[in-house]
Amino acid sequence: MSKLIKPQTLKGFRDSLPGLALAREELMATAREVYRSYGFSPIDTPALEYSEILLGKGSDETDKQMFRFQDQGDRDVAMRFDLTIPFARFAAQHLNDIGTPFKRYHIAPVWRAEKPQRGRFREFIQCDFDTIGTDSNIADIETLLVIHDLMTSIGFERFTVRVNHRQLLNGLLETLNLADQSTGVLRALDKLPKIGREGVINELLTLDGMTESQADAVLKFAELTGPPADVLNQVESLLDRNERGMQGVNRLRELFDAVATAGVDPERVALDVSIARGLDYYTGTIYETFLDDLPGIGSVCSGGRYDNLAELFTKQHLPGVGASLGLDRLIAAMEELGKLEGASTPATVLIVLFDETHAGEYLRMARQLRRRGIATEVYPQTKALKKQLQYADRKGFRFALIAGSNEFAAGQWQLKDLTAGDQQEVATDDVATVIHERLQS
Amino acid sequence: MSKLIKPQTLKGFRDSLPGLALAREELMATAREVYRSYGFSPIDTPALEYSEILLGKGSDETDKQMFRFQDQGDRDVAMRFDLTIPFARFAAQHLNDIGTPFKRYHIAPVWRAEKPQRGRFREFIQCDFDTIGTDSNIADIETLLVIHDLMTSIGFERFTVRVNHRQLLNGLLETLNLADQSTGVLRALDKLPKIGREGVINELLTLDGMTESQADAVLKFAELTGPPADVLNQVESLLDRNERGMQGVNRLRELFDAVATAGVDPERVALDVSIARGLDYYTGTIYETFLDDLPGIGSVCSGGRYDNLAELFTKQHLPGVGASLGLDRLIAAMEELGKLEGASTPATVLIVLFDETHAGEYLRMARQLRRRGIATEVYPQTKALKKQLQYADRKGFRFALIAGSNEFAAGQWQLKDLTAGDQQEVATDDVATVIHERLQS
Repeated sequence: MSKLIKPQTLKGFRDSLPGLALAREELMATAREVYRSYGFSPIDTPALEYSEILLGKGSDETDKQMFRFQDQGDRDVAMRFDLTIPFARFAAQHLNDIGTPFKRYHIAPVWRAEKPQRGRFREFIQCDFDTIGTDSNIADIETLLVIHDLMTSIGFERFTVRVNHRQLLNGLLETLNLADQSTGVLRALDKLPKIGREGVINELLTLDGMTESQADAVLKFAELTGPPADVLNQVESLLDRNERGMQGVNRLRELFDAVATAGVDPERVALDVSIARGLDYYTGTIYETFLDDLPGIGSVCSGGRYDNLAELFTKQHLPGVGASLGLDRLIAAMEELGKLEGASTPATVLIVLFDETHAGEYLRMARQLRRRGIATEVYPQTKALKKQLQYADRKGFRFALIAGSNEFAAGQWQLKDLTAGDQQEVATDDVATVIHERLQS
Repeated sequence: MSKLIKPQTLKGFRDSLPGLALAREELMATAREVYRSYGFSPIDTPALEYSEILLGKGSDETDKQMFRFQDQGDRDVAMRFDLTIPFARFAAQHLNDIGTPFKRYHIAPVWRAEKPQRGRFREFIQCDFDTIGTDSNIADIETLLVIHDLMTSIGFERFTVRVNHRQLLNGLLETLNLADQSTGVLRALDKLPKIGREGVINELLTLDGMTESQADAVLKFAELTGPPADVLNQVESLLDRNERGMQGVNRLRELFDAVATAGVDPERVALDVSIARGLDYYTGTIYETFLDDLPGIGSVCSGGRYDNLAELFTKQHLPGVGASLGLDRLIAAMEELGKLEGASTPATVLIVLFDETHAGEYLRMARQLRRRGIATEVYPQTKALKKQLQYADRKGFRFALIAGSNEFAAGQWQLKDLTAGDQQEVATDDVATVIHERLQS
């Protein structure tokens, strides 16, 4: 016999066993349903692309993390490391077919040769949605509503979507004659939660020509808190009618008005003028989503508005807005909050195989249950009842159905509720109905 | 401005635009639901594996087709070219966690650098399900039932699952003293549809020690047709009580009995003793599935029983049975049969944006419809009504909802049925109900 090959996954990669895979499928199905309910269509792009395309806009860091190689035809190819660049390429390539506005979602794995660490893997699923080809604030508002519906559909009640608009700060900087310092200011503000007020001021003062009173004005702005309408009034007074800044203020006013009109709980949407993420990318509205019970894990759904999606690939101007659901981060959070079901089977009922001569009857009962929408597994072998019940317990079946010659003679089944721990006799024709009722109650 | 990068996909790869992506998602959702209804659990494995693992059992041909390279850590890695070898590695690696019997499905892309041709791509989705860790014929029977339910759930009424059992022919060859010629005989029989009876006989006669009467006996066997019970009786008489062959006969008898008991239309399941596929792999029951209206595209769901899944990775004996749904082939078939819906939006209703000052009301109506399960898109910009209706038509929306100041004053909406071509006025509070009713009828 030849030597065995050691069964192992690559460093930084992992298998999904049924428990994790069920949770992921559930989340993806929910995301799909929410995206579709707003008219976003699915698309897919290849895992492999010309490296030239993926390298187009990447930073040095992402370039180093790409799985890149020569293929059989000596093409320089790489595995996608996000869904944004492939979408930009897709939009440029198919613009005539898809038209604008175009709303798409894309749920697919991406690959990055990052240094593996707890909870970070070299393969993970991204779950993006975007509306492109329009500057309309309606698209920004709907992006917020989609994030809201994603969270509630997944089962979270206590969360906050923090919203900002990049032009608020840009307008302020113009007012302060600091327009050319915006990148440095954003970079410093991004560290506010980590290094605090003094730290940010010190960093701001290292910027060319920044005075103490200017740095102080920036901090005062970033520290504004309160109900969105109040904060926006205060921002307005700081902006001194700066046009760029007032565009941002007005779009945010529309957004918070629409949120109220649409019947979204106002507690769940906050204005946070300090958000500085996506420095080099977002140009308008910015979104971050935090779980109130687990803020430390960071944003679980982030996004924003950008000026031009596909400038590397087409002259067509394609503004857009969108966000990305952090699937694996959410699953980790659900696990920590005890929101994950423990089952490793998608089925509800295990039919115990007691007597192989009645195989047809077990299979027929299984079909009856499936027809009523009750997922049912037939244990494939005659083994000791105890073993089969252990199997049912370990996998997380809710019910076991048992019948031997006595039961078949009497036209009955033993229905064992493995959660409640009780057992009852049910006539063959009533089994589906009884299970259905117990599942409802 | 820098030079544009040409937006293009790699040779042999393709994007899925919304129409195709919607059809694929629909099929995958159906497959998932059927698999789950039988208690199969999802799993996932990484796209990248150690080449050693993937090369383990491959043929020269698949080896050449692997996308294989050195990663950043100088590991010899490759992209999976099927889901079977990763499943074997998975089963060996996690055997203690998953236990047996173990039923899994796996829906995921695989990559093969094949010569691109019409309908064949270098990236395609496989959709496999397997039961491992048991020899039980119940698992073989359920595999057949799953295939049957997949086809009917997808919407096919006219199809035939052709079943065979590898041990029928092996038993016959033992009876004919040709046991050591089974590979050559199977290879010749596999060509029966292409080269015909004479061709196969000529090929059989090239095998060591094959006489004309033996070749004739093999052909007589392969040409048996009729109701399964009759064919099995004839096979039994040819087998002359050969034990191996009779095992196959008895398992097939059980299978056809169970099919009848389970209430499956017997027209849809045929015995075809000439099937010789999976020569070097399958050892028991074999399945192929043909569309009665489109037999030429080949089997759309194939599989069988194998002796030992993971022998390259573990000493644990893991027999199993399973099959694979040919997703892309099915989509091609559905397109040809006119069974694909043409829409490129998942939404039912487009709300026309007529008057931006009423944005909140359009958004609120959209939310009301979504709450009733009616997917609804709000057109993001005020554009000419005609343009917005063209957009709705092109994407395949069923309804457009229109309201301007007059309608808002009167508390009414214009509901335009884009399929039927009619239009009616509906009170704001009744819109969801009216749409719901029109969708039902």
